[in-house]
Amino acid sequence: TTAAKKSYNITLLPGDGIGPEVISVAKNVLNLAGSIEGIEFKFNEKLMGGAALDATGVPLPKETLTAAKQSDAVLLGAIGGYKWDKNEKHLKPETGLLQLREGLEVFANLRPASLVDASTLKKEVAEGVDLMVVRELTGGIYFGKPRGFGTNENGEEIGFNTEVYAAYEIDRIARIAFETARKRSGKLCSVDKANVLEASMFWRKRVIAIAEEYPDVELSHMYVDNAAMQLVRNPKQFDTIVTNNIFGDILSDEASMITGSIGMLPSASLGASDKANPLATILSAAMLLKYGLGEVKAAERIELAVLDTLNRGFRTGDIYSAGNKLVGCKEIGEEVLKSVDTKT
Amino acid sequence: TTAAKKSYNITLLPGDGIGPEVISVAKNVLNLAGSIEGIEFKFNEKLMGGAALDATGVPLPKETLTAAKQSDAVLLGAIGGYKWDKNEKHLKPETGLLQLREGLEVFANLRPASLVDASTLKKEVAEGVDLMVVRELTGGIYFGKPRGFGTNENGEEIGFNTEVYAAYEIDRIARIAFETARKRSGKLCSVDKANVLEASMFWRKRVIAIAEEYPDVELSHMYVDNAAMQLVRNPKQFDTIVTNNIFGDILSDEASMITGSIGMLPSASLGASDKANPLATILSAAMLLKYGLGEVKAAERIELAVLDTLNRGFRTGDIYSAGNKLVGCKEIGEEVLKSVDTKT
Ligand SMILES: CC(C)[C@H](C(=O)O)[C@@H](O)C(=O)O
Ligand SMILES: CC(C)[C@H](C(=O)O)[C@@H](O)C(=O)O
Repeated sequence: TTAAKKSYNITLLPGDGIGPEVISVAKNVLNLAGSIEGIEFKFNEKLMGGAALDATGVPLPKETLTAAKQSDAVLLGAIGGYKWDKNEKHLKPETGLLQLREGLEVFANLRPASLVDASTLKKEVAEGVDLMVVRELTGGIYFGKPRGFGTNENGEEIGFNTEVYAAYEIDRIARIAFETARKRSGKLCSVDKANVLEASMFWRKRVIAIAEEYPDVELSHMYVDNAAMQLVRNPKQFDTIVTNNIFGDILSDEASMITGSIGMLPSASLGASDKANPLATILSAAMLLKYGLGEVKAAERIELAVLDTLNRGFRTGDIYSAGNKLVGCKEIGEEVLKSVDTKT
Repeated sequence: TTAAKKSYNITLLPGDGIGPEVISVAKNVLNLAGSIEGIEFKFNEKLMGGAALDATGVPLPKETLTAAKQSDAVLLGAIGGYKWDKNEKHLKPETGLLQLREGLEVFANLRPASLVDASTLKKEVAEGVDLMVVRELTGGIYFGKPRGFGTNENGEEIGFNTEVYAAYEIDRIARIAFETARKRSGKLCSVDKANVLEASMFWRKRVIAIAEEYPDVELSHMYVDNAAMQLVRNPKQFDTIVTNNIFGDILSDEASMITGSIGMLPSASLGASDKANPLATILSAAMLLKYGLGEVKAAERIELAVLDTLNRGFRTGDIYSAGNKLVGCKEIGEEVLKSVDTKT
């Protein structure tokens, strides 16, 4: 304990609903794994989403964004809830999340789906699925302008958004995806709707251009409707998927459910705090260590602990099935802590 | 045979890939069911999609659109294929389909998912699922302008599309959906991304306004990412779903796969003519009779015949599972014909 410890500043954004509960569990897990691996975390908790709206009137206070920017990594709980559903756009919790992504320029979103647990798919279909959705996160229809409400040339009321991608936006997410695929099985599937949308035709063109830098990665293309179908029909055909913001939003949630990926129920479990499942957040913390800080050993320690906890039969309500031990959010967190401690 | 028969003009558009094969089977089924019910069909076959491109240079010849407009109903096989994938937008087979939908003003698309066969979901999850996706078909990002390629204010190359809905477009599809839900279980779920997109906020606002005309229908709302997840997690929670063009494209394909709905593999089975499954087209023909021509008896005769054929264990390659009888496209068509004949 005399050697200078490695130290990181982490901004915690508990947010809404089950957020505070799962973040508190994840924080304990980070602390323990860190102490074993000689890493110190300095946590800085900030307001965000509906919680920030209620306290400050805006979904992303400047102070929160500044803290996030100055820290080494950010861990987010959950965002949104019925209470704020009718708010105007700029007063929605979700708008705070979009502003955060934009402010931090986090243009890539890695969403793994691999743990088979409580999947509704037949065992032989779901078992062994291990895929990664690389979602573009700061472009496309989420941020495109013009957007808003107005009237068309016939005086009819309209609502509209713009799906738009610039070359550099596609190129940089494509490179992340190719790099990811290279580290995995070397297979990348780019999902678009290039048979209908110009934005998708352009997407495909740029992905094909970037592919020349990665001759060792096998690139394929799939239309989004077919991808939504194939994820159910035969998810094992996929390794790494790269797609735009909105398609990635849809497909990554579908994929997480296909593998029964634990606790990946952001909207579904929100507010139902008795069923809060902290495992997704704990695994996010592991990703933060691995991809964000390069702390691979601490990350894998946490991943193994989650697996071990599941193997020991502990389940929260959302993923419970007969024969397992039903526990709450805090309890499963304690079991993960035990596993972090004992599995070396 | 002396009474004046009812007679309908049907435009057949075989299109590409497996299209001609499945259309020819569906035509035989229509003829037989019609002859039993005292209905005569006059078929008029026209070019469309890649087939039309190769023969005439355009994906929707004027003659085809005119014939379609003048007929009582249109039955389409399949559209598209690798061969034309690199064509420019106006020379894509799919563009012909969009022009047809626009030309015929078919703004509503009913996509049922109910037959459980070869589903990859666990039996207890898939069994008894019976849902209908009502998809808006002539608006949204498929048709919105501006669209195309260009450069942004930084001189970067871009590709872009516009997601736009006018009040009347939402109102009319909402009414179709409420009517559909009323005839079914009285539950309607509107799917959008109103936490992020203005076009979706407007969609939700109009759907809520139209709901006042249908106090007997129970309306709920769901975000599209959650819907993609819930369709896998617990599809039985849905009865009627209404959504926009692009979300409907994605979710209806996902839903069809969740129920293992036979032969609903437009992109997947395209070109693989050994695995052509005509049952989807036969069931489409039944929908044409029921919803298009009001010929409910003939429609149900066909639906029952398909069920009977499946119950007798016949399967095409795409939906084959052990213990069943593997047959080709033509053979399963002949089995359906037998069932049409004997089941009265
Ligand atoms: C809450 C919402 C804005 C967000 C998104 O659509 O990106 C969420 O669904 C997600 O996937 O992170
Ligand atoms: C072929 C394509 C243009 C079409 C669509 O996207 O509408 C198809 O996927 C469908 O769902 O009918």
